[in-house]
Amino acid sequence: MSKKNLNIGMIGYGFMGRAHTNAYCQVSHFFDSQHKPVLKAVCARDEAKAKSFAEQWGYESIETDWRKLVARKDIDVIDICVPNNLHAEIAIEAAKNGKMILCEKPLAMDSAQGLKMVEAVEKAKVANMVWYNYRRIPAVTLAKRLIDEGKLGKIFHYRAKFLQDWTIKSDLPQGGQGLWRLDLAAAGAGVSGDLLAHCIDTAIWLNGPMSTVSCMTETFVKERMHTLTGKVEKVGIDDACIFFGKFANGSLANFESTRYARGHKAAYTFEINGENMSLGWDLHDLHRLQVFDYTDESKIRGWKSVHVTDNSPEHPYMEKWWVPGLSIGYDASFTHQVADFLTGLDTGKTASPTFRDALETQQILDAILESAKTKQWVSVAK
Amino acid sequence: MSKKNLNIGMIGYGFMGRAHTNAYCQVSHFFDSQHKPVLKAVCARDEAKAKSFAEQWGYESIETDWRKLVARKDIDVIDICVPNNLHAEIAIEAAKNGKMILCEKPLAMDSAQGLKMVEAVEKAKVANMVWYNYRRIPAVTLAKRLIDEGKLGKIFHYRAKFLQDWTIKSDLPQGGQGLWRLDLAAAGAGVSGDLLAHCIDTAIWLNGPMSTVSCMTETFVKERMHTLTGKVEKVGIDDACIFFGKFANGSLANFESTRYARGHKAAYTFEINGENMSLGWDLHDLHRLQVFDYTDESKIRGWKSVHVTDNSPEHPYMEKWWVPGLSIGYDASFTHQVADFLTGLDTGKTASPTFRDALETQQILDAILESAKTKQWVSVAK
Amino acid sequence: MSKKNLNIGMIGYGFMGRAHTNAYCQVSHFFDSQHKPVLKAVCARDEAKAKSFAEQWGYESIETDWRKLVARKDIDVIDICVPNNLHAEIAIEAAKNGKMILCEKPLAMDSAQGLKMVEAVEKAKVANMVWYNYRRIPAVTLAKRLIDEGKLGKIFHYRAKFLQDWTIKSDLPQGGQGLWRLDLAAAGAGVSGDLLAHCIDTAIWLNGPMSTVSCMTETFVKERMHTLTGKVEKVGIDDACIFFGKFANGSLANFESTRYARGHKAAYTFEINGENMSLGWDLHDLHRLQVFDYTDESKIRGWKSVHVTDNSPEHPYMEKWWVPGLSIGYDASFTHQVADFLTGLDTGKTASPTFRDALETQQILDAILESAKTKQWVSVAK
Amino acid sequence: MSKKNLNIGMIGYGFMGRAHTNAYCQVSHFFDSQHKPVLKAVCARDEAKAKSFAEQWGYESIETDWRKLVARKDIDVIDICVPNNLHAEIAIEAAKNGKMILCEKPLAMDSAQGLKMVEAVEKAKVANMVWYNYRRIPAVTLAKRLIDEGKLGKIFHYRAKFLQDWTIKSDLPQGGQGLWRLDLAAAGAGVSGDLLAHCIDTAIWLNGPMSTVSCMTETFVKERMHTLTGKVEKVGIDDACIFFGKFANGSLANFESTRYARGHKAAYTFEINGENMSLGWDLHDLHRLQVFDYTDESKIRGWKSVHVTDNSPEHPYMEKWWVPGLSIGYDASFTHQVADFLTGLDTGKTASPTFRDALETQQILDAILESAKTKQWVSVAK
Repeated sequence: MSKKNLNIGMIGYGFMGRAHTNAYCQVSHFFDSQHKPVLKAVCARDEAKAKSFAEQWGYESIETDWRKLVARKDIDVIDICVPNNLHAEIAIEAAKNGKMILCEKPLAMDSAQGLKMVEAVEKAKVANMVWYNYRRIPAVTLAKRLIDEGKLGKIFHYRAKFLQDWTIKSDLPQGGQGLWRLDLAAAGAGVSGDLLAHCIDTAIWLNGPMSTVSCMTETFVKERMHTLTGKVEKVGIDDACIFFGKFANGSLANFESTRYARGHKAAYTFEINGENMSLGWDLHDLHRLQVFDYTDESKIRGWKSVHVTDNSPEHPYMEKWWVPGLSIGYDASFTHQVADFLTGLDTGKTASPTFRDALETQQILDAILESAKTKQWVSVAK
Repeated sequence: MSKKNLNIGMIGYGFMGRAHTNAYCQVSHFFDSQHKPVLKAVCARDEAKAKSFAEQWGYESIETDWRKLVARKDIDVIDICVPNNLHAEIAIEAAKNGKMILCEKPLAMDSAQGLKMVEAVEKAKVANMVWYNYRRIPAVTLAKRLIDEGKLGKIFHYRAKFLQDWTIKSDLPQGGQGLWRLDLAAAGAGVSGDLLAHCIDTAIWLNGPMSTVSCMTETFVKERMHTLTGKVEKVGIDDACIFFGKFANGSLANFESTRYARGHKAAYTFEINGENMSLGWDLHDLHRLQVFDYTDESKIRGWKSVHVTDNSPEHPYMEKWWVPGLSIGYDASFTHQVADFLTGLDTGKTASPTFRDALETQQILDAILESAKTKQWVSVAK
Repeated sequence: MSKKNLNIGMIGYGFMGRAHTNAYCQVSHFFDSQHKPVLKAVCARDEAKAKSFAEQWGYESIETDWRKLVARKDIDVIDICVPNNLHAEIAIEAAKNGKMILCEKPLAMDSAQGLKMVEAVEKAKVANMVWYNYRRIPAVTLAKRLIDEGKLGKIFHYRAKFLQDWTIKSDLPQGGQGLWRLDLAAAGAGVSGDLLAHCIDTAIWLNGPMSTVSCMTETFVKERMHTLTGKVEKVGIDDACIFFGKFANGSLANFESTRYARGHKAAYTFEINGENMSLGWDLHDLHRLQVFDYTDESKIRGWKSVHVTDNSPEHPYMEKWWVPGLSIGYDASFTHQVADFLTGLDTGKTASPTFRDALETQQILDAILESAKTKQWVSVAK
Repeated sequence: MSKKNLNIGMIGYGFMGRAHTNAYCQVSHFFDSQHKPVLKAVCARDEAKAKSFAEQWGYESIETDWRKLVARKDIDVIDICVPNNLHAEIAIEAAKNGKMILCEKPLAMDSAQGLKMVEAVEKAKVANMVWYNYRRIPAVTLAKRLIDEGKLGKIFHYRAKFLQDWTIKSDLPQGGQGLWRLDLAAAGAGVSGDLLAHCIDTAIWLNGPMSTVSCMTETFVKERMHTLTGKVEKVGIDDACIFFGKFANGSLANFESTRYARGHKAAYTFEINGENMSLGWDLHDLHRLQVFDYTDESKIRGWKSVHVTDNSPEHPYMEKWWVPGLSIGYDASFTHQVADFLTGLDTGKTASPTFRDALETQQILDAILESAKTKQWVSVAK
C-alpha cells in the first residue's frame, strides 16, 4: 500500500515545535494510516535558527516569513507553534490558502478572536485541530471510555489543578524567547490560558459543558524586568487562578492553577467523583489511572492504581507500543494526536478537538477572567 | 508525687463521648501532669444508655439532666459532646457554675452564639477549650513547628479538602441519633460546620487569619425522610461547600468539603506552599507529613514522606509512645489534647484552641455561608 | 451482667510491659467479654521501677521476685515480658502453679527449650498464648480471611522483610536495659529471633508450614562495648538474615531481616502472590491492605489500596472503634489479641497462637540458623 | 558540520528490533554526535516480514540470510536482536568481518560461549556493546552518580526483584515467535537469563562485583505444548529464581525473579542501603528515584520521591528532552544507549557495557544456576 504524503509546514521551533515534529517522525513507525507526514518546511524569523532546526529534524526547506509558507503550494498542513498573539492572523491566512491547520493551545487570545478563527476554517472547509494533547494520554483516554460506558453514574464533583513552581524567583524576567508566557501582550493571560486551558479542555471532554463560574486570580510578583524593553515593567498576567462553578450536568467544578506551588513541576491532576466510580490522574505519573470502583466487594474496596500499559486494545493506543509494564512518555500524547488526525483524514471524520471544540475552552477562560475582574459569578457564553 | 484529681462530667455518649472518654483514660498512662482526670459522671437523657456507657467506661455516676450535672459540686470539668444546637446553653450555664468547659466543635451554631459563649467563659474565668483535635496529630503539630521556625518562607497557597462519601444514598434519613448531622436544626450547617470547620481551624493555626472569602454550596439530595417527624422533609444542610479567598498574609485559600466524593472515607488533606518549603498531610495516613524542601540539593529534591513516629522530642508527642516506625491512631489526637489541657492547668497557661480561638473559625463559617447565599465576596468579621 | 475478673501478674516493665498493660486497660472499653483483666501486680527486680510502673498504670501491688508472683493465689495470668533467656524458666514454673500464661515472642531460645514450655503448659492444662501481635492488625486479619475464602487460588510466592536501621552506629553498646537485643546471651539470636520470628509467624498462619530452607546471616559490626561487663566484646547475634525455601503448599519463600537498612524504622512488609489474587502489607502503613484482584475487569485491573477502617464486621475488629477512615494504632493489635484471648476463655476455645503454634516458628528459626552455619539446605523439623 | 553516517544492519524484527530501530531514529533529533545512524538493512528469514519491517521503519534494504548481511561492505554496525542461542555465531562472524556489534542481552547462552564472543571482538578490535538498557534510565544513571560521589558511604544491602505474571496460564505454549523465552533450547534459561540478567547488570554497575551466591529455582508449570514440535514437552526453563550472596564490598545480595507474581507486569525494582543514604527504583515508575538521605535534618528525614525530569545537566540525559515534570518513556533508555555509543565513537572511548563487561553478568548467571542445581554455595568465576 502506498501512502499519501502530508506535507507539513511548521511555524516555530521552540518546545512545541520540537514536540510536534517528534510526533510527525514517530507516528508512522507505530500507527497505521493511509497518510504519512512529511517534514516539508519550517519557518522562523531567524534564518540560522530555522536552518539549525531543519537540520536537526530533517525538514526539507526553511522559510523566514510565515506568509510565504502558508502560500506555498507544496504545503498541506500548517502547524502553528508560536506565541498566542500570533495564532489568529496565521490561522486565518492559512485557512484562506486552503491549508489544514494544527494550532497550539490555547486557540486564541480570547473567544472573540477564537470565533473568527473557527469561522475561517469552517468557511474554508479545512481540517483543523488544536493541540490539547492530554486527551491522548492513554490513562486519560481510558477515563473517557469508562465515563462513556456509564461506569461512573451520576457525577457529583470534578476537580482539577495544574501546579508549577518555576516563576517563584522574582528576578526571572518577562518576555522574549522562553519567557513570553510571562508577558501579557504575547500570552494574553497567565496560568489560566497556559495551564487551566488544559484542565478545562479535558474536563469538558470528560464531563460536558460548564454553565457558571466564579473566579479569583492573583499576581504575586507585581513587576519584572522585560527582556524586550530592558525595563522593569508591571506584570500583567495571572500568576495563580482559582475558580469554582457548575457543569451543565449539575456537578461542581473546583479548578486551580499556579506557578507558585513549590515542589510541583507540572502537576496537572484531576479527580472526578461519580455515584458508582471515581477516577483520578496525575501528569507526573501519566501512565497510571486511579480508579475507585464502588461495585467492588465492599471489604476490598479501595483506590486502584491501574498501570495503563497493556498492549491490548483495552488500554488506548498501547497495543502499538511495547509490552505490559513498559511506559511511554509525555511525547507520545502528541504522536497519538497526529495518529488520530491521520485516521480522521483516512475516514473523513475529523479528530477532536477542532477549533470549534477549543472555542468552548476559550469561552470558559473569558468567563473566569471576567469573574476575577468583576468579582461576580459569570455565565459561560454559548 | 500525688496528683490533683480533675473530675469530669461528660454530656453525651456518642462517637465523641467515647473518643474523649478514651483520652481521659489514656492520658495519665502516657503523659505527665500534676492533674489526673477522673470519670465522675456521664449525662444522657436516656437513663439506660447512660448506665451502660458508665459501666463500659467506668464513670462513677450518671445524670439524666445536664442542668443537674453542671450544678454538681464534685464536677470540675464539663465536656460537651451533644449536637451543636445544645452547645451554647450548656456552656453558658456551666460557666455560670464555674466549671471548666471542653466543648466539641464547632463551638456554636454561628458566631453570634459563639460570642456569647466566649463572653460567658471569659467572665467566669474558667479554663475552656474546643475539641479541634487535628492540631494534635503529631504530623500536623510538626507542620506547625516547621512553619513557626520560618522554614517555609513566604506562603503562597493553602489548600484543604475534607472529602467523604457516606451520604450519597438518597434513602439515608436525616435527624436522630447518628444522623443529626444531616438535620439543619440540630447541626446548624452541613459539611461546612462539620468538616470545613476542622480545615479552617488547622489553617488559621498554621497560616494565620483569613480576610475575605467567596463560596458556593450545593445540596445534592434535596429531600430526605426525617426520623423525628417520620416525614420526607427538605434537606437544609449543605452537602458540599467550596470556597476560595485570601489569608491576611497574602496567600490564597482553596477549600472544599463534600460527602459525595465516592472513594473517600474521611479524606481531610491540606497542602501549604511556601517559597522554600511545602508541606502536605492526609488524615488517611495521619502518621506521615509530606515535605518538599527547596533547600535540598537540587538533583535529589523531591517530596519526602516523613513517618512521624520517632520517639524523640523532635516528633511531637511521640516520645511518650512506642518505638520508631510504630504508629498511633486517630484517638491519640484527643489524648494529646487532654495532655496539653492538663499541662495548661499545671502551668496556668491555657491550651489552644480556647473558645475565643474557635470563635474565629465560626466567623469564617459565617462569612462563607453568607457568601454562598449572596453569591458575593464577603469579608471575615474580626 | 457482672464480669469475671482476670487478675494479671505482669513480669517486666519495658516496651512490651507497657504495650500489654495498655491492652489490658483498653480491651473492656471496646470489646465485649465475660472476662475483665485486672492489673493485680507487676514484678521487677528494681523495686523503685516496679513502684513507678505500678503507679503509672494502676497495678495494685508489686513484686521483686518473679517466683513469689507466680506463687500468688490472687494471680490468674502471668504475662512474661522479660528477655528471651528468662521465658522458659518462668513459664514452666507458672504452669506448675496453674497460671494461664501470656508470653512475649519468640517463645524460647530455641525449639528444644520451646518444646519443654509446650509440654509444661499442656501438662498443666493452662490457657497459653504467645504475643505475635501482628496477626491482629485488621489488615493482616483481613488477608487471612481472603486466603481462607480461597480468593487467592494456588499460591506461588510469599515474600517478607523486616527492615530496620537502628544499629548502624558502631558505638552503640550491647547488653543491658533496652540493648539486650544485641546480646546473644539474653536474646538467643539477632534479627532472626527478634524480627523474622514475626514474619514467620504471620507466614505460617497465612500460608501454612514451611518444609525446607536455606539461609545466610551476617554480623556487620563484629565487636561492641558490653554494658554489663564494661568491655569491648564480640557480637554474637546476626545483624542481618536472609533465607529462601519452600512452603508445604509448593510456594516459594523469600525472607529477609536486617537492622542495617538505612531509611527503614520498622518496615515489616509481606507480599503473597496467588493465581487469582495477590496481597501486600506494610507495618509503616498498617491500616492498609494492598490487593490485586485478577478477577477485576481487565482494563481497570490494578493494585488496590484498601483502607481497612470501616466500622463494619467485614473489616476485622474495626466495628468496635471509630468511623470509616479513622485509623487505629500499632497498640490496638495487642488490645485485639487480649480481646481474642478473653473470647477464648468465654467459649473455652483458646486463641492462637498457643505455645504449640509458636513452637513451629521456633523450629523454622532453628532450621535457618543451622543452615546459615552449615551453608546447607535444612529441612524444618516437625 | 557534516556528520559521519553509521550504517546499521539489523538482524531481527521483534520487540527488540523495534526498540533499537526507534532509538536509531530518535537519537539524532535529541543528542549531539559526529555520527549519525542510518537504517541500511534489516535481516529476517521471512522475506515478507523483513520487507514489511523495512517499510514501516525506513530501512533501505533487506536480507534474508544474516551471513550475507554481516559480509556487506556498506554495513558498519551489526545489531543482534534474535534469540539467545544465535548470538554467538552471528557476533563472532560479524567480528571477523570487522563490524561493530551491538548485541541484545544476555550476551550468550553461558559464560563459556560469552568468553568466545569477547575474544572475537577484542581480537577484531571492533566497538561492541550489550543492550542492558536500564543503565540509561535517567533515574538509574542518577543513582550511579550518587554512588560514585560517595553519598551512600559503606553499602550494607542490595536487593533486586524482577516480577512478572504473564506465564501463569498453563495453556500458554512454549517456543516460536514471541514465546521462545519459554523454550530452553532458544533461551538458554528462564527468568534468570531474561530478567535477573538485567538486575545483575545494574547491580554490578552500581555496587561492584559479586563473590559468592546461593540460589534456588522453580518450574511451576512442568509441561507445555511446544509450538515447533506440536507436542506437549517438558519445560526446561526456570519459572522463578531466587538467590542471595555477597558482593566483593561486603554487602549482601537478595535477588528474585519470577513470571508468577500476579499483579506485576514488569516490576523490576532495586534498593540499595548505604550507611548515609539509601536508594530505590521501580521500572513501573521509571522516572522516579527514591532517596533516603540520612544527612537530612532528623525531624524531616524521609524517603524522597525524586521526579528525575529536570532539563538540567544534573538529571542525566533530561536536558535534551522536554521541560521539568514531563516524563520520557521506556524507549528513551535505548536512545540514550545509542547516544552514548555514538559519543564513544566520537571520543574513541567505548561505551559500557562492552561484551567484556557483560561477561561478568554471564559468570554470575552460571554460578546461580550451578548453585540451584547442586544446592551448594558457588563462588563467582573471575
